[in-house]
Amino acid sequence: MRILHFSDAEYQQRMLRVKQRMQAQDIDVLIVTEPANINYLTGYDAWSFYTVQALLVFQDVDLPMWIGRSIDKQSAIVTTNLPDERIIPYPDIYVHSPDRHAAQFIAQMLLREAPRAKTVGVEMGAYYYTARDHAELQKALPNVAFKDAELLVNWVRFIKSEREIAYMREAGVITERMMKRAVEVAAPGVRQCDVAAAIYHAQMSGTENYGGLPATSPPHMGFGERAREPHPIFTDRRIDTNSVANIELSGCRLRYHAPMSRTVYFGRPPQSYRDLASYVIEAVETSLDAVRPGVTCEGIELAWRKSMSAHGIEKENRLGYSIGIAYTPTWGERTASIRRTDLTVLEPGAAFHLMGGLWLANTGITITQSFVVTATGHEPLTATPRELVVKD
Amino acid sequence: MRILHFSDAEYQQRMLRVKQRMQAQDIDVLIVTEPANINYLTGYDAWSFYTVQALLVFQDVDLPMWIGRSIDKQSAIVTTNLPDERIIPYPDIYVHSPDRHAAQFIAQMLLREAPRAKTVGVEMGAYYYTARDHAELQKALPNVAFKDAELLVNWVRFIKSEREIAYMREAGVITERMMKRAVEVAAPGVRQCDVAAAIYHAQMSGTENYGGLPATSPPHMGFGERAREPHPIFTDRRIDTNSVANIELSGCRLRYHAPMSRTVYFGRPPQSYRDLASYVIEAVETSLDAVRPGVTCEGIELAWRKSMSAHGIEKENRLGYSIGIAYTPTWGERTASIRRTDLTVLEPGAAFHLMGGLWLANTGITITQSFVVTATGHEPLTATPRELVVKD
Repeated sequence: MRILHFSDAEYQQRMLRVKQRMQAQDIDVLIVTEPANINYLTGYDAWSFYTVQALLVFQDVDLPMWIGRSIDKQSAIVTTNLPDERIIPYPDIYVHSPDRHAAQFIAQMLLREAPRAKTVGVEMGAYYYTARDHAELQKALPNVAFKDAELLVNWVRFIKSEREIAYMREAGVITERMMKRAVEVAAPGVRQCDVAAAIYHAQMSGTENYGGLPATSPPHMGFGERAREPHPIFTDRRIDTNSVANIELSGCRLRYHAPMSRTVYFGRPPQSYRDLASYVIEAVETSLDAVRPGVTCEGIELAWRKSMSAHGIEKENRLGYSIGIAYTPTWGERTASIRRTDLTVLEPGAAFHLMGGLWLANTGITITQSFVVTATGHEPLTATPRELVVKD
Repeated sequence: MRILHFSDAEYQQRMLRVKQRMQAQDIDVLIVTEPANINYLTGYDAWSFYTVQALLVFQDVDLPMWIGRSIDKQSAIVTTNLPDERIIPYPDIYVHSPDRHAAQFIAQMLLREAPRAKTVGVEMGAYYYTARDHAELQKALPNVAFKDAELLVNWVRFIKSEREIAYMREAGVITERMMKRAVEVAAPGVRQCDVAAAIYHAQMSGTENYGGLPATSPPHMGFGERAREPHPIFTDRRIDTNSVANIELSGCRLRYHAPMSRTVYFGRPPQSYRDLASYVIEAVETSLDAVRPGVTCEGIELAWRKSMSAHGIEKENRLGYSIGIAYTPTWGERTASIRRTDLTVLEPGAAFHLMGGLWLANTGITITQSFVVTATGHEPLTATPRELVVKD
């Protein structure tokens, strides 16, 4: 049994683009460690990245090589496009061991396959590529030069294929259902954790036609005073009357995400809060109107800033970020950010979460939109109305 | 509003133990980056570790210093025992930026507070301490010596307090409920993702008296052929008749875990499979009987090995690992492992997941037990019977 979600041709295309970038940077071997990047290039999907694993991509050898813990070999056989002989397990004695490190094993395999490799690319700032992993690799490969190739694969991921966009649309439908359930269940007197339970249930159930997956992150839910925090975890306290809640969540389909935030008001919001909501909604709409191929990320942020400054409000933190395939701890791709100084030019197939979120001194509000850039503008990934949700 | 789950005295005790270890290793400042360690020492709890954050512990200054992204400052105010002036936010321009790195900011704060620091401890192999974080810190602190202090805090966490054990018992009760729901819902014809939905719902709902939290990891569910994989993700396929499923999951209470695995057989298991289950159950029981203060981790594994070898079965991978407080990606503490060569001596308050799991060439089986070491033996953290679950 093999489980693959893209055609051979699509995987080959991805690998080709990676090798082109490797060539441009004179990298002989790329050690890919970021779980989303390994998945993108081979399909590999298992919760094994808490131990060392890597995909070696060789400039001069056709097929890459997966290296991971012995017990996870079977997952590589089932979920990747690699022939069995390119799936190389290391023994369990390397796992969380004080005197051995899997980097030693990886170095051996690298030299066996590419004994004349001069320059080795590594993803310096990637999650799960720890300082120790790097130090051990350097020790085990004293004769090669290391080059930082962080985001090399992530930038290839930046433009999504038709198939990828289709999965993100499916994730978006799950996102809508999750938010719908949250709004249905949340009410004064209900425990926060019971709202979370309803969200998670909707997330995994997906639709009648396809199931969901856990996202990279729990729903970020800030109730009452805690609406001032963007990334709090829910508790078992009961929801107060006359309070707000920010709920940020994402459906996930085959590791693709389409996040969304909404603010729910329990009770009758004061006019000042309704005004705040209308400013955010207007600024999000103005920003989305500015989206089209050729515009920069900075340009989108400028549209937001102009709209908000008319009301005297400034947002210090970034307005959004690239999204797509992701593993914990974040659904952001760490490439383009929608903010001042980011000169990334939008192209069809780029996807973002436009984070219309404000965390102010005494309250917070979040009304956001995930979208894909199209040939002429943008396509929203969720259809939930952009509004302040009022439960009175 | 402050939310703290332990007494001041307990936090002080933890910090004292950390400083004693720092002194023994001549460390002037410890840069703590592992989310579970920051939580352990201050209570800090937010999903912010996808950007750089650190807790600086000074040998010569009483209070530590939390440094994180500006928008997460409010979470530090709410969830830690630190006075506001020890909560230091860095501006958003440091987030996922090509030309700036938060390590530069951390270095400035460190030097401001401890200008004469000579030796700085860092957690080299900790999750979220990336190779780039370390390289940038080294660049920004050219006049200090770096020392690997990985697991320094983790080893302080190794022995749990009464209060911690109480939270782990509560996590265990949630674990039992999650497994109960999984077994109720799972049946031939049901989609795997709908079993996951039921598990997650039970996980967050917790009990009438307290709520749950998401665990570090999704439930690992291997159905049918995929029972040979320890860490697969569920799909939306329907469960087959006459098939097995391994389900590993953990309840979570205030970030404390108590994991458990069970195997469910859909249909009538052949005698050979029943025999396999009885060998595992017997070996788990023999191992648990060996648990008491003074015994080594290796000693527990020896009891397992003797029991299994009578049936000609060898388990290559480790038999268990230390558990407690944890953030994604694993509920293991990365300190002691129950395996050959691990000479860690058991003490009251140590806690483990005894992983009675076999992933064989043609099937798999997992019947496990989380426990705490007591003065005279062990206390199980879950009461679910250790048996092969049959749904016929």
